[in-house]
Amino acid sequence: MKAKVHVTLKSGVLDPQGKAIANALGHLGFTGIGEVRQGKYIELELAETDREKARQQVEQMCRQLLANTVIENYSIEI
Amino acid sequence: MKAKVHVTLKSGVLDPQGKAIANALGHLGFTGIGEVRQGKYIELELAETDREKARQQVEQMCRQLLANTVIENYSIEI
Repeated sequence: MKAKVHVTLKSGVLDPQGKAIANALGHLGFTGIGEVRQGKYIELELAETDREKARQQVEQMCRQLLANTVIENYSIEI
Repeated sequence: MKAKVHVTLKSGVLDPQGKAIANALGHLGFTGIGEVRQGKYIELELAETDREKARQQVEQMCRQLLANTVIENYSIEI
């Protein structure tokens, strides 16, 4: 079973990487660009076949390793 | 208009970051984890209001800056 996880910075948390992208796009001549935020996208291949159990397992992974829940949100798609 | 971009490594390209996550999850006691791949997720706020033009603009951004098309794929959601 495949799980997809998005980890994004909470709104209000500064995102220097996103800012750098926005600046670089400006230098390349792109206009009309507002806020840019960069997050992480993680794909996991799981042996678990039960959707609900897989979701719980990935939820645990997010809390323990994949996301820093102080400053980041995560969302899981199974 | 908001654009969401996923940048992922092409299959066959080694992903040391994904491997590190898989190893770390193993050390934390998670079992049944197969391949882990890490990509980037970028959200852009665009002034453009036409969907098709926005898509073309983001497509250009991906080719010029956001993705290294030699080793990475990208997908765009508007």
